[in-house]
Amino acid sequence: MTEWLPTLQTETPEDAYELAIKLARVAVKKTQSDAEAREALRADYANDADALIAVSHVVAVNFATIAAANSYWRKS
Amino acid sequence: MTEWLPTLQTETPEDAYELAIKLARVAVKKTQSDAEAREALRADYANDADALIAVSHVVAVNFATIAAANSYWRKS
Amino acid sequence: MTEWLPTLQTETPEDAYELAIKLARVAVKKTQSDAEAREALRADYANDADALIAVSHVVAVNFATIAAANSYWRKS
Amino acid sequence: MTEWLPTLQTETPEDAYELAIKLARVAVKKTQSDAEAREALRADYANDADALIAVSHVVAVNFATIAAANSYWRKS
Amino acid sequence: MTEWLPTLQTETPEDAYELAIKLARVAVKKTQSDAEAREALRADYANDADALIAVSHVVAVNFATIAAANSYWRKS
Amino acid sequence: MTEWLPTLQTETPEDAYELAIKLARVAVKKTQSDAEAREALRADYANDADALIAVSHVVAVNFATIAAANSYWRKS
Repeated sequence: MTEWLPTLQTETPEDAYELAIKLARVAVKKTQSDAEAREALRADYANDADALIAVSHVVAVNFATIAAANSYWRKS
Repeated sequence: MTEWLPTLQTETPEDAYELAIKLARVAVKKTQSDAEAREALRADYANDADALIAVSHVVAVNFATIAAANSYWRKS
Repeated sequence: MTEWLPTLQTETPEDAYELAIKLARVAVKKTQSDAEAREALRADYANDADALIAVSHVVAVNFATIAAANSYWRKS
Repeated sequence: MTEWLPTLQTETPEDAYELAIKLARVAVKKTQSDAEAREALRADYANDADALIAVSHVVAVNFATIAAANSYWRKS
Repeated sequence: MTEWLPTLQTETPEDAYELAIKLARVAVKKTQSDAEAREALRADYANDADALIAVSHVVAVNFATIAAANSYWRKS
Repeated sequence: MTEWLPTLQTETPEDAYELAIKLARVAVKKTQSDAEAREALRADYANDADALIAVSHVVAVNFATIAAANSYWRKS
């Protein structure tokens, strides 16, 4: 998993949002490195409202970081 | 779901709040892409105080980001 | 629920705190739009320590946003 | 409960920490206004590790806000 | 517990991290003032993965505050 | 565990992410100092979706701090 995060700069807010999801997932991968084990858990959280809201929370924190890194894509 | 987030700039704080809710929902959609499965979960979280508070928390984090992006709509 | 959030500017920190509570509640209202359903849940969270702490957390996040929006009411 | 939060400015970081605790408590009071009900819950959270950690989390968020409001008491 | 937090300025990031842990603990102490009661809870959270992660979360929030207070120890 | 955090400056965002994970782990180590006890808990959280999401959340908070410390690696 080399060079998976070359920069926090993104062209658009949408790209940033995708990157925020990626950041959230990498922490999970690095804690549970077994892909099968992760896949087995997927059914759990994908059908659990609390887990889905928690995922959304982590994405929100990462998105905040990336948005700040891009100065919120303000037109200067 | 193309061009769902063209900008973080909003006219008013209320528009920002709506966008914050949208941001919270998109992370859920991207984790559970099955609309029926999401609908099935709706009864769970809409009638669970803890889940509703958790949703409000995620919206708060997203709103913070969008508010900063708009320099808090301060009159300059 | 039009014009419920015309501005993040408040006269005092206390007004900001009230607004932070309002922001926390609106996300709940927009997720569970049935007033009776919300009222039914009230007994749950108002008598549950964990839920009350969680509410306080959401208010804290919103208060941070509003305080920043007001430059912390510093005397310039 | 008038004038409970006249300012976010404090003389010292310790005063700020006390204010952060106060902010955390006020949200609880405004959600559960019955003092007896709150007292009844006290035994619950004061003897529950998860609840105590959650309280500490809310205080941390409020402290961050107050510290920023005071420019971290940096000597200029 | 007087003068336990004279300043947020630290010499190094490591000192800041220790201070972040201290900040997290003080909120617990001020909520549960009985040292024996706290000690009794220790076995609970020290052997519970969820509690340990929650502790780490609170430390992270406090560390963010202290790091900002020190301008991230950037060499100017 | 001396000199484990000499600086928050990193060459790349990826190095920052690794450091964010390290920061998250140190708080756990300092709360549960027994390596065997920590190892025993590993099976718990590595196979629990909620715990993995919570870990990702802590990493996100630490990453935000480190990213700010590095001015988001913007090319000036």
